Amino acid sequence: MSRSDNLETAAGQRKSGRLAGETGLIGALAEVFGPPPRAVVLGIGDDCAAVSLKEVKGNLLWTVDTLVEGVHFSLAYTTLTQLGWKAMAVNLSDIAAMGGEPLYALLSLGWPPERDLALELAQGLAQAAREYGVAIIGGDTVASPGQVAVTITLTGVAPPRRMLRRAGARVGDLIYLTGELGEAAAGLLVLKRRPELDADLQAALVAAHLAPKPQLAAGRLLAGQGLAAAAIDTSDGVASDLYHLCLASGVGAAIPAAAVPISPRVLAAAPYLRADPLRLALMGGEDYQLLFTSPPRKAVRLHQAFAGVGLPPPLLLGEIVAGDRVLLIDAAGAVDISGAGYDHFHLDPENEAI
Amino acid sequence: MSRSDNLETAAGQRKSGRLAGETGLIGALAEVFGPPPRAVVLGIGDDCAAVSLKEVKGNLLWTVDTLVEGVHFSLAYTTLTQLGWKAMAVNLSDIAAMGGEPLYALLSLGWPPERDLALELAQGLAQAAREYGVAIIGGDTVASPGQVAVTITLTGVAPPRRMLRRAGARVGDLIYLTGELGEAAAGLLVLKRRPELDADLQAALVAAHLAPKPQLAAGRLLAGQGLAAAAIDTSDGVASDLYHLCLASGVGAAIPAAAVPISPRVLAAAPYLRADPLRLALMGGEDYQLLFTSPPRKAVRLHQAFAGVGLPPPLLLGEIVAGDRVLLIDAAGAVDISGAGYDHFHLDPENEAI
Repeated sequence: MSRSDNLETAAGQRKSGRLAGETGLIGALAEVFGPPPRAVVLGIGDDCAAVSLKEVKGNLLWTVDTLVEGVHFSLAYTTLTQLGWKAMAVNLSDIAAMGGEPLYALLSLGWPPERDLALELAQGLAQAAREYGVAIIGGDTVASPGQVAVTITLTGVAPPRRMLRRAGARVGDLIYLTGELGEAAAGLLVLKRRPELDADLQAALVAAHLAPKPQLAAGRLLAGQGLAAAAIDTSDGVASDLYHLCLASGVGAAIPAAAVPISPRVLAAAPYLRADPLRLALMGGEDYQLLFTSPPRKAVRLHQAFAGVGLPPPLLLGEIVAGDRVLLIDAAGAVDISGAGYDHFHLDPENEAI
Repeated sequence: MSRSDNLETAAGQRKSGRLAGETGLIGALAEVFGPPPRAVVLGIGDDCAAVSLKEVKGNLLWTVDTLVEGVHFSLAYTTLTQLGWKAMAVNLSDIAAMGGEPLYALLSLGWPPERDLALELAQGLAQAAREYGVAIIGGDTVASPGQVAVTITLTGVAPPRRMLRRAGARVGDLIYLTGELGEAAAGLLVLKRRPELDADLQAALVAAHLAPKPQLAAGRLLAGQGLAAAAIDTSDGVASDLYHLCLASGVGAAIPAAAVPISPRVLAAAPYLRADPLRLALMGGEDYQLLFTSPPRKAVRLHQAFAGVGLPPPLLLGEIVAGDRVLLIDAAGAVDISGAGYDHFHLDPENEAI
């Protein structure tokens, strides 16, 4: 391993803010990330990472997400190891939403010069990478005086004809989720409000917020067996994510309020959190489930396929309808929640900081 | 174009710092970047960008660089359009250093919520992308309260057998540069110190700092004709970059001080900048030239090849020698400058902010 770097120091960094022991840091990061697989022609240690394409069949997927301290996370609530896991997981979730297989990641790490312990962050990245078969093969480190910023670029492959997209939902499709909603948002409230709540329940909600599990197996299954017409991951909140899917597909959606698959943990914790569980479920975001549509005639095959690989059954959320709005239906009528975010609902005065 | 986004809003952004008019911003950015080429299956508007690999032959190259406000640039010295150009150019330079062709870019833009005018930055990115044949096909935007941060991930392809690497230099190789040194560092001093200097000279130096030109044509030529044994781009400064090349190759280097190809503009400006031109040239960095080695028996062919495609002749810097140090040779003897950065030399008290 060269002490130089792809994990490269951006030019100029040393001029006002070289990371303490940065050359050593890069070597140490590379050690944590481990040796790359055979198809990686050049990993950490040159101007670029280089990968042989010979064994890659399909479309190359490509996604990038940045988590910024004070915006996406607070180091008062998350350890660096947890942050590393989550930074990788949110990108893996984008690959899952295409029905893809993750391949390689680049890290771009903005790091306050006075701060230690980037290796803990690397441990978390490496854990998630190992768990989901990703090789971290390069990147750069830069001084970031104000805040920690973790950017992961992730590639993957998807079967060209069966790749999942946001576009493709048709009127009459059923809308499903790979898991229950609201735990991640409730977990953040637990961290912020420290409610008087059962310890196991707290731990489960906090884990949902800090250590989301990208739904790669479900995405692979949906794409591989042609079971989904359209798909997206639930990152911003279902009201917003489903609206994105509807926009891309040129359709609307109807959600019966009574049928929203709210996590029982969220229902149990909501009173202690002074939060509306339905709103946590639909506008809370960060659950990183897959939200997908599928025609009713495939319902049995869909459930069989999930059961066949040991996945929990898909949960029904609603139905694709004509129009261009996402409507929440309850006894009082229909409410347009198209693109609604958490703050839109003014849950309570502390809400701005959820 | 979907109003949703690959140029995706990272989850949580809206929770404390949605970009003003961010949905509109993404659409507007996408418009500035223009429609993607045919091989792009999905551009801006889904969870990932997706690219067909059918027509890509060779190794896939992959690089990422982040420019952070206050570390790599000051908005007192650069316009957003210039910043956009530079953010793309520094990544293109990494592709050039492999002898590659750039293909696709993702933007991850950290943007202070209260700030306008991300479109000017996009214009600069788009200018550089057009100039060098890159398609910007996705990314994300996140609120970054402290500072502007621009992360570009760039892919390219390189011929598998002839890809340029840092490793490969051999004792006896000659060391060359694709252009003169020191202008970018001198340009930064011009911006900071506002010296009494000829206006044309100032403008040329400032342009070298703000609008570097990645040496893609030279890289392509060196790789395609097998004319370089090892290569790197000069981002951190020759003393540091050459040391990285030597480390990767397991060799040392000797540079005759009298032969360093210092830009005449730097020689002319140095007294007004209170700077040592040799130090600007060797430790200043950001010239984004290619530094490469080539065996002496190829010297004629090398010069013919450069002349044949209209490139200025390669400039001799020194020679690869046994050992593991980068030595600067002058009448007084040899000075070890291995990995030396600008601050290492304590040029003057203002230096820390160069």
